[in-house]
Amino acid sequence: MLKRPYLLFVGDAPDLLAAKSAAGVWQWRPELCVGQVRLCGCRAELPLPVMSIEEGAAAGARTLIIGVANAGGFIPDFWIDTFLQALEAGLDLANGLHDRLSDRPVLVEAAAKRGRRLLDVRHPSRAFGVGTGEPRSGRRLLTVGTDCSVGKMYTTLALEREMRARGMDAEFCATGQTGIFISGGGVAVDAVVADFISGAIEWLAPAAAEGHWDLIEGQGSLFHPSFAGVSLGLLHGAQADVLVMCHEPTRRHMRGLPNRAMPDLQACIETNLAAARLTSPHVRCIGVAVNCSGLPSAEAQAYLGRLAEDLGLPCVDPLVDGVAPLVDRLTP
Amino acid sequence: MLKRPYLLFVGDAPDLLAAKSAAGVWQWRPELCVGQVRLCGCRAELPLPVMSIEEGAAAGARTLIIGVANAGGFIPDFWIDTFLQALEAGLDLANGLHDRLSDRPVLVEAAAKRGRRLLDVRHPSRAFGVGTGEPRSGRRLLTVGTDCSVGKMYTTLALEREMRARGMDAEFCATGQTGIFISGGGVAVDAVVADFISGAIEWLAPAAAEGHWDLIEGQGSLFHPSFAGVSLGLLHGAQADVLVMCHEPTRRHMRGLPNRAMPDLQACIETNLAAARLTSPHVRCIGVAVNCSGLPSAEAQAYLGRLAEDLGLPCVDPLVDGVAPLVDRLTP
Repeated sequence: MLKRPYLLFVGDAPDLLAAKSAAGVWQWRPELCVGQVRLCGCRAELPLPVMSIEEGAAAGARTLIIGVANAGGFIPDFWIDTFLQALEAGLDLANGLHDRLSDRPVLVEAAAKRGRRLLDVRHPSRAFGVGTGEPRSGRRLLTVGTDCSVGKMYTTLALEREMRARGMDAEFCATGQTGIFISGGGVAVDAVVADFISGAIEWLAPAAAEGHWDLIEGQGSLFHPSFAGVSLGLLHGAQADVLVMCHEPTRRHMRGLPNRAMPDLQACIETNLAAARLTSPHVRCIGVAVNCSGLPSAEAQAYLGRLAEDLGLPCVDPLVDGVAPLVDRLTP
Repeated sequence: MLKRPYLLFVGDAPDLLAAKSAAGVWQWRPELCVGQVRLCGCRAELPLPVMSIEEGAAAGARTLIIGVANAGGFIPDFWIDTFLQALEAGLDLANGLHDRLSDRPVLVEAAAKRGRRLLDVRHPSRAFGVGTGEPRSGRRLLTVGTDCSVGKMYTTLALEREMRARGMDAEFCATGQTGIFISGGGVAVDAVVADFISGAIEWLAPAAAEGHWDLIEGQGSLFHPSFAGVSLGLLHGAQADVLVMCHEPTRRHMRGLPNRAMPDLQACIETNLAAARLTSPHVRCIGVAVNCSGLPSAEAQAYLGRLAEDLGLPCVDPLVDGVAPLVDRLTP
């Protein structure tokens, strides 16, 4: 679990996309962010005070979140001085890159000396058991998708916000690094050993009180040939009462695979429901969350209307329309 | 890759089931086995000469295979002396247990001193890329199953034997530890990081000459809630032209899950074909391999006959009838 509040390290991010992890934390948990730390050449700026490490510590930050990514997922040497300052100032470091803080002896030594933690959240810090698929109490919602990066995390967080606003007992369960920063815990399921995918999700969203909803962030797609194994293990481990399908209508091919067409939305819903029934026989899909940011707004409304009619389900853009029509379909 | 021939360590195995890895190597590759090493209390005996380490080395063995398993998958301390003798005698050690030889400093030191290898085959020794699902040349067959441990490895090896007897260019591709011992290489796919399941199989069975068949050992089942993610990633990575369904008709519930019924065989075939089509649109199922060892032989024949009629597919017990009717259905 990450100590709060956070200081967001955006490093030398060339644009906001490179800092999307920091941007996600700021967007969904602004109250947890005291400021941002930028290095020379940084072109991503969040609407947060720019601070030195010392200023961040003085403002109460307990964790420096490395909220910037580069193509290789590595930690460049010129970030290390800033990280040492943060440890010296009493902050933990939280890192979502593939590269590990704990592989840098200079950081390990400094952290040990100051009693601070190096949290490589992309790599599981614990062992999991295998999943069992045994029925468990509580209620669970899982976001699934036609593809990777179609808005599953944003949709899940929007659902949490809407449900809490209605007084429902709902909790976001993170399965990727940005989600882990936002919620302060979770498991990066794509980094779990294959045998334990469903077991890790059973651990993440365990048996709970009957009125409680765990809202589980989905990953990948059953139709993405690189990652479908992760998606299926996640689906079985989630034992979801309810699925929300996520989609991005302007995408021309599956992410990272120029020769692979996007799946049909209706077929994708049916395939997910069929697979989910293995551990949740009464699962249903309550609607579709569409990231319409690539469409002109008039076109977006027409598209959502047509889709809702075709599928017979509420279809919304979570960041434009909100997700109330989806939450309306949850029985209390 | 494992150096041949092998000396099989059965340790203090209380029965042949505990030594099933050694038994599998002996059954499928007797020509690679020079003898067996037994410790005090061992109750598993293979029809192979019992040897000391020195006798095995003198007989030409290059690798000591740890072909015995216990419930926790750990290496007891009283095995270590024998392993040190093997390193001293010039043998590599190959281990399929969860516990690692490379975590034992005394073994690491002895291996380094003698220039020998500690092969923890259950843990991948290399990194994999993510799968792409791009079409690749060559032909591939994958064994799939209604459950875990229903004979996928034995069926795949029986297919290799039959195809080679017919002069076909066919190669067994191992995805589990016993299979790796038998073939001398492969990848324990359930131990791969989740993101790379399909990528590991694309690496294991890469593009090949058009007449070449890779026969890929399946794992788990799409209907096993603990492991279906592994099975799906394997199915997508295999990009199989042909599936063979494996089944065990006397099993009352899914392996390890007393409350979970076995899936319907026809539904299991259809679900596997539907999922396989994502990366292999023309995939077909050529038949069913049934482990009938739990049925009286008259009943077994009647069962196979009924099943063949119901499914419209050849149904055989590979170890009783052989797999010729399956290979007949492969177009050359």
